[in-house]
Amino acid sequence: MRLSHLFTKTLRSAPADEQALNAQLLIRAGYIYKEMAGVYAYLPLGIRVLENIKRIVREEMNAIGGQELIMTNLQRQDLWEKTDRWDESKVDVWFKTKLQNNTELGLAWSHEEPITDMMRNYISSYRDLPANVYQFQTKLRNELRSKSGIMRGREFVMKDMYSYSLDNEQHEAFYETATQAYLKVFDRVGLGDKTFVTYSSGGAFTKFSHEFQTVTDAGEDVIYLDEEKKMAINEEVYNDEVIKHLGLDKAKLKEVKAAEVGNIFSFGSIKSEQLDLAYTDKDGHKKPVILGSYGIGITRLMGVIAEIFADHKGLVWPEAIAPFSVNLIRIGDSDKTVKAADRLYNLLTEAGIAVLYDDRNLRVGESFADADLIGIPNRVVISDKTIAQNNLEWKKRTENEARSISEQELLKILER
Amino acid sequence: MRLSHLFTKTLRSAPADEQALNAQLLIRAGYIYKEMAGVYAYLPLGIRVLENIKRIVREEMNAIGGQELIMTNLQRQDLWEKTDRWDESKVDVWFKTKLQNNTELGLAWSHEEPITDMMRNYISSYRDLPANVYQFQTKLRNELRSKSGIMRGREFVMKDMYSYSLDNEQHEAFYETATQAYLKVFDRVGLGDKTFVTYSSGGAFTKFSHEFQTVTDAGEDVIYLDEEKKMAINEEVYNDEVIKHLGLDKAKLKEVKAAEVGNIFSFGSIKSEQLDLAYTDKDGHKKPVILGSYGIGITRLMGVIAEIFADHKGLVWPEAIAPFSVNLIRIGDSDKTVKAADRLYNLLTEAGIAVLYDDRNLRVGESFADADLIGIPNRVVISDKTIAQNNLEWKKRTENEARSISEQELLKILER
Repeated sequence: MRLSHLFTKTLRSAPADEQALNAQLLIRAGYIYKEMAGVYAYLPLGIRVLENIKRIVREEMNAIGGQELIMTNLQRQDLWEKTDRWDESKVDVWFKTKLQNNTELGLAWSHEEPITDMMRNYISSYRDLPANVYQFQTKLRNELRSKSGIMRGREFVMKDMYSYSLDNEQHEAFYETATQAYLKVFDRVGLGDKTFVTYSSGGAFTKFSHEFQTVTDAGEDVIYLDEEKKMAINEEVYNDEVIKHLGLDKAKLKEVKAAEVGNIFSFGSIKSEQLDLAYTDKDGHKKPVILGSYGIGITRLMGVIAEIFADHKGLVWPEAIAPFSVNLIRIGDSDKTVKAADRLYNLLTEAGIAVLYDDRNLRVGESFADADLIGIPNRVVISDKTIAQNNLEWKKRTENEARSISEQELLKILER
Repeated sequence: MRLSHLFTKTLRSAPADEQALNAQLLIRAGYIYKEMAGVYAYLPLGIRVLENIKRIVREEMNAIGGQELIMTNLQRQDLWEKTDRWDESKVDVWFKTKLQNNTELGLAWSHEEPITDMMRNYISSYRDLPANVYQFQTKLRNELRSKSGIMRGREFVMKDMYSYSLDNEQHEAFYETATQAYLKVFDRVGLGDKTFVTYSSGGAFTKFSHEFQTVTDAGEDVIYLDEEKKMAINEEVYNDEVIKHLGLDKAKLKEVKAAEVGNIFSFGSIKSEQLDLAYTDKDGHKKPVILGSYGIGITRLMGVIAEIFADHKGLVWPEAIAPFSVNLIRIGDSDKTVKAADRLYNLLTEAGIAVLYDDRNLRVGESFADADLIGIPNRVVISDKTIAQNNLEWKKRTENEARSISEQELLKILER
């Protein structure tokens, strides 16, 4: 994409009320736009990052047999009453609205109830199980405060998966499979060495649920981390009994701030019983289905990555989710330079490499400042000088020194 | 995808309250699920159709310079008050909700106001124009009635594009370009010969707006159609003066029912003036930006296609948007048959052909009935009999007779 064509521009400053580093940088660089506190639009650069994250998550969910669907934002009161989660005293993040005939509707903050109810149409026999479904859904949550940028939105994108299993054995096997798939996702987006399976409170059915916590000072949670064993305990369940139960050594646990990028949860048969989702087993007995739920906050993940991979100049995207692989900058507007830069742009594009082409002919300092703020992994410069040397200038966003290399060398680097 | 793995099943009947043919068929075949009137979830088969439609629309929007973004569902009152569209007496399809501090919010039924307000951050000079942006957005509209299945939802997916132009000349050129792009979209999804540019009421700025109306008895609109000139007039502006103005002959106009699958609209400078979106021209004068808006109802389009391309046995998807290209059916479960069918499934999949593989080993009548209901363009059967003949059986969904052909012939047919 040519920067001269992109409608967004880098901005000198973020809105005065924006406190979070992730949103400040993403707004200034043109990835997102703040509609109101906790509610952000995603602009062309931002959509590309989101789609890259979604692609990775989708691949990993499909690889473990997940089937993609998309549920609705508008939700029925009767379903949430069956599980006693309609009332605001039980769930304090509801947005609600009304049909013209005054029927009250809920706006999707989660989907266990509607999906489980829907499954009654498709699950009746043991032959129909297991079924594992997921969606990328825009969720609305009426958070009292929303000050962490896209790390805690009132409107945000979540990947939520739901597993329906025959029995606890089948459930636990999938739960473990999903855990491994989640770790792969966090690894692929660049957070592998900072993200830890964390024991958290479990609810009515299980002692624990599991969170995936990424260590960052921007996080809202506190966890106690054993770096060697790659395990952590959320402060909400941190006590001597739990430490002992998990076989951890209190002396080795480090208190750190972290952001929850994913969570997995066993509901047992509770919800299926409340919503009457049952199946007939091989012997003709009616049994409730075992439910698990598995979430990854897609926009939150983007926020955490923006927050962690940044320096004083701007964003520093990991290769796998960067909106473009190359930021090609043309310095000067001589025929020769324009021709050479256009040629390289076409060559890379045709090779399937995503290029953001700065064809604006700004002063070099301005283009470099924009490139640092936008944070694309590879910066390539074409100018009269590089043409005279029959070379080009390449710099990684993560390094300080630019190098003079040939086009062939660049292609080899990018194809890695 | 293996049908044994797909969690949906074909259903004998749609919900009793479902009156629309499109939703009846789509529910029975497992494409959609009805959450409540006008609110449908999209299941794995349905998502594939939606994504195919979106891909076509996206390609055509990108081809005319559209830049994709995604705005928010939660909207601010102040923006809609500036254009006098906040009050329910002015816009009767609002869903509204509230923050915990009682601030009233709107739920997105359209996006002219938020997008135009946002553009104030990026448009200040003539150099910033034109800018053409679009999104695929879930819209919520509080329709009093909703009986047309996914052709008129309370929750639905829309592609809406907004053009920001320097002056009327630049606007009109893009408006014409967008018209042609829309006709290409409708052509590519299989509605080319049934869809007509239709003159409709224009509002404050222009005499007419333009709708794209697809002729179908399931439509909610009435249009007067000149089939030769490929032009039509919506009944809401149908009178002798308009007929004359458009150079049409009343005697040649046919009254038909039609569904609006797209519309394009000129706002002139009205909204930009209300929302204070202006630019400085070459001579330093401040001028309002000219706005156009362009919509295609993505889920409605799917509904119209389902409605038109159907027979008494089920759906008949056009190739370009079908969820799969081939419905491969295995009849029998001898080792030889399983091996041959699995082999063909892998061969086609590796050739990049999307295959729905009916590996359930049902009675042939059941598998054929499901195939007809689901409506995938090509049905291929592998059985002991076809193996003995060293052939396979191929039938197009649009034809009655199956033919015995070789694997090589099948590959040629599918690669067309």
